[in-house]
Amino acid sequence: MAYKTSTVYNLIICFFITDTVLSDKAATSGNVLILLADDGGFELGAYMNKICQTPNIDALAKRGVVFNNAFTSVSSCSPSRAALLTGTPSHQNGMYGLHRTVHHFNSFDTVTSLPNLLSAHNVTTGIIGKKDVGPAAQYKFDYEQTEENNRVNQVGRNITHIKLLTREFLAKANRDQKPFLLYISFHDPHRCGHTDPQFGPFCERFGSGEEGMGLIPDWHPIYYQWEQVQLPYFIQDTEAARRDIAAQYTTISRLDQGVGLVLQELQSAGHADDTLVIYSSDNGIPFPSGRTNMYDPGLREPLIISSPRPRSRKNEASFAMVSLLDVMPTVLDWFGIPFPQETNDISQTDTAKSLLPILEKEPPYSEDDAVFASQTHHEVTMYYPMRAVRTRRYKLIHNLNFGMPFPIDQDLYDLLNRTASKQPLPWYKTLEQYYYRPQWELYDIRADPAETRNLHGKYMGRTSDKLAPCRRANRVVARRQAGAGARGGGAARALAALAARVGRPLAVRARRRAGARARRRARLPSAAASLAHSAPTRAFILLVLRSHV
Amino acid sequence: MAYKTSTVYNLIICFFITDTVLSDKAATSGNVLILLADDGGFELGAYMNKICQTPNIDALAKRGVVFNNAFTSVSSCSPSRAALLTGTPSHQNGMYGLHRTVHHFNSFDTVTSLPNLLSAHNVTTGIIGKKDVGPAAQYKFDYEQTEENNRVNQVGRNITHIKLLTREFLAKANRDQKPFLLYISFHDPHRCGHTDPQFGPFCERFGSGEEGMGLIPDWHPIYYQWEQVQLPYFIQDTEAARRDIAAQYTTISRLDQGVGLVLQELQSAGHADDTLVIYSSDNGIPFPSGRTNMYDPGLREPLIISSPRPRSRKNEASFAMVSLLDVMPTVLDWFGIPFPQETNDISQTDTAKSLLPILEKEPPYSEDDAVFASQTHHEVTMYYPMRAVRTRRYKLIHNLNFGMPFPIDQDLYDLLNRTASKQPLPWYKTLEQYYYRPQWELYDIRADPAETRNLHGKYMGRTSDKLAPCRRANRVVARRQAGAGARGGGAARALAALAARVGRPLAVRARRRAGARARRRARLPSAAASLAHSAPTRAFILLVLRSHV
Repeated sequence: MAYKTSTVYNLIICFFITDTVLSDKAATSGNVLILLADDGGFELGAYMNKICQTPNIDALAKRGVVFNNAFTSVSSCSPSRAALLTGTPSHQNGMYGLHRTVHHFNSFDTVTSLPNLLSAHNVTTGIIGKKDVGPAAQYKFDYEQTEENNRVNQVGRNITHIKLLTREFLAKANRDQKPFLLYISFHDPHRCGHTDPQFGPFCERFGSGEEGMGLIPDWHPIYYQWEQVQLPYFIQDTEAARRDIAAQYTTISRLDQGVGLVLQELQSAGHADDTLVIYSSDNGIPFPSGRTNMYDPGLREPLIISSPRPRSRKNEASFAMVSLLDVMPTVLDWFGIPFPQETNDISQTDTAKSLLPILEKEPPYSEDDAVFASQTHHEVTMYYPMRAVRTRRYKLIHNLNFGMPFPIDQDLYDLLNRTASKQPLPWYKTLEQYYYRPQWELYDIRADPAETRNLHGKYMGRTSDKLAPCRRANRVVARRQAGAGARGGGAARALAALAARVGRPLAVRARRRAGARARRRARLPSAAASLAHSAPTRAFILLVLRSHV
Repeated sequence: MAYKTSTVYNLIICFFITDTVLSDKAATSGNVLILLADDGGFELGAYMNKICQTPNIDALAKRGVVFNNAFTSVSSCSPSRAALLTGTPSHQNGMYGLHRTVHHFNSFDTVTSLPNLLSAHNVTTGIIGKKDVGPAAQYKFDYEQTEENNRVNQVGRNITHIKLLTREFLAKANRDQKPFLLYISFHDPHRCGHTDPQFGPFCERFGSGEEGMGLIPDWHPIYYQWEQVQLPYFIQDTEAARRDIAAQYTTISRLDQGVGLVLQELQSAGHADDTLVIYSSDNGIPFPSGRTNMYDPGLREPLIISSPRPRSRKNEASFAMVSLLDVMPTVLDWFGIPFPQETNDISQTDTAKSLLPILEKEPPYSEDDAVFASQTHHEVTMYYPMRAVRTRRYKLIHNLNFGMPFPIDQDLYDLLNRTASKQPLPWYKTLEQYYYRPQWELYDIRADPAETRNLHGKYMGRTSDKLAPCRRANRVVARRQAGAGARGGGAARALAALAARVGRPLAVRARRRAGARARRRARLPSAAASLAHSAPTRAFILLVLRSHV
């Protein structure tokens, strides 16, 4: 804490220069450590998994708040990381799919990212592990040890190496006497059967000390019996799938011990008591209905936040509906830096929010709480744009490329092999259902948590009239608005605002595009994809959903 | 020509450094001027249009060779420009769709472009007009006056301004005493109803001298009666469409006079007799079946090449099957620079070829001659990947996203409006046919030049077995190979080479991907899109085609 005085001094200078208001928080704030798993899920003691051993993450959870309703904005690696680091959905920041090799997606040259904004406010930033976003200038950390200048397994899975890099970064931050953001982006527990099959399907033997596997000195692998893993409802109950999960668990033991080592380094550097620690993952686990899906196994994420502030809740669960888009405003809030409304073209009602208040007090419960998700590509050939809204009770998914089969990743071989060889398939869906999805899916999650009974069309009348739900929603809003005074209704006012937003762009578009009207009248396909990038999509979907409630 | 001695000296130095062999051509070569129209078609006297007046382009044609079988590799603006400047199809160079704004596609950071390669060989490079490709470092001209540092209409449609910029560039090239490539990328006759509607649907009033339209001093607009335009078979015979064509013709008068001004500047600068002049366009005209389509109106391009070399053909037509991918090797050949085989990961049989020999002698005619095309996006929401092969007689199109309607651009409003209002539609297709395309389309272009009778499936047997055509093709190849000695067969040898290429990657893939086999066996969708980026696609499609012949 030797640098605190000069830090405060620097911050004050900085805020004068940028002409923003310094909140009183900044004076007491320290640093931020983000720990991100790669395709990690709820295989954690803190989330009630009884088999997979994760003592270090569990200990972190005991010192913080465990979020039970946290969702990623997009279920794909680069897009979710770009969303995390910009506070914007992928269709808004330009990262429509994977960044590397032939996929080659990049965020717009105009996005403002968390590291760049922090650097401009005199915070030292560092990344260790998998970066997987670009352009480089838009995602620039002061200290970078990533797959761009290392082998990804060395910076993402070799926890001894990660420990030493963490030590190096923290020593530098201490020398500089500046607050820091350190973003440790583990590559565990990502599959690696397609890149490094010699280490097993989840790289669970990488550095295990077995012959030819190398040795990670700090790792003590934990092995599991495939018969004993805890099988989520969305994974087929087969030996192959269970063996995959057992391998995933072993890899998670490396991740968990890596988390422990990093937290130990934090303590040794004198920052255990002035650092906000956030643990999460980029997207759902790499199994059917998980990664690349808008179903809950693809969108729900572990999220643990531990704050050293005295009033912060410890060892508690929050049921607030939160998005990983909220991480950027949370970190900015921690450093006392306002999240500029004009940044990244975010409009008022879409703005992500700081989670710091939740660390002190559970927010009021509302059935209206909602999070949003959007997806376009995963790999460049895996084009399947979707938009989704998830309230506490309902989920609506809009599949824009519904005429084609859902593009599958490497996670379904077992299902394919069993189907091909006509073996029984103990799974909650059929492959046909999985491949062929309707344009709209609506689930009552409370009654049907596995999202298997599509309610869309059951309440909706003619589906060919695309504007009907919008009109119906507007009527609902108008009725609620009329009664708002009597009901005191904040929700009604919010709905009215949403309706106004939806109504206006539609009207403008109608005037500007003579052909659009004709297209609708002709009942010929109106390039549903044109919705995909329109600003009011989120609000529109929400209204469609409201019309069902 | 004052600089010739030092040019040769520089070139020799350069070739010693790069360790390549200097051909004797370099000693006699001069410069290259590329004139590219934007969405331009065959509205040219040189291509037998009797109405649209283009005296300057026609005069160029009289001094050179008019290609009657030239095809773009991709029918979309940025992708076709990236293909032109790298000699590679868009699926290979990474420009999968439009470059600017939300579409945001870029070529790979590893591509080698024509301007970069020429700069490295001491050729001065310049671009005036619409660039629309990136990344900037991969497409770097020494002199750039483009939409990136100007208003696009000023550098792409204001022909007086283009004339003065050309003068500036040529003066610089003369001062530097270096050979040059000048790439004039007109924005005419692109539509502009969506961006600058005040100037008319094709910007045909921009700079016309009418009130509020500004004045381009060097332009003498030519106006046309909509009843008298020459209507191509693929455009509906309606007043709205004819008025569009009349406007397009007027805009072409600006383009044509711009070509005349630039050629005049070339002469004034002393380079009329040492410069290779190439005129072409990026993709088909912006009408139904044109731009963004793999039908001939989308792929066929005007191509005129005028060489000052004494033995070059003048005022002749060539019927060679050529691709705009051939432009880069042609320019390199002109400068005596070898087209490195390893550049842009081009494999031997896919390599584009120099057209310079055709300028001296018509190549032998062969029914085997083929060109290839591929498309992925146009706008980012217009995902409709296609692969096509076109021989003199046949065309095969593979529509990978065939389950969804073809995404339409701004060129069909008239069709939509008439359909919506139930007016008669005098068109060669129905909207339903246009929107809903089968997975495979095979046309006998000689018997059916409008590509309306799909022959696919008529010869093919079961379509569910995706490998059957490949196996059948292999049998054909094997039979031809067996008889090759007797028939002297170069074509048979080429086919055998293709078969080897196709066979090998399939075998390798089968070994590496256990799931792929299962997927095929199960007859479930095998993510047809996975073909889209596989190296052997072109050869595979060619083999499928061969099996019909």
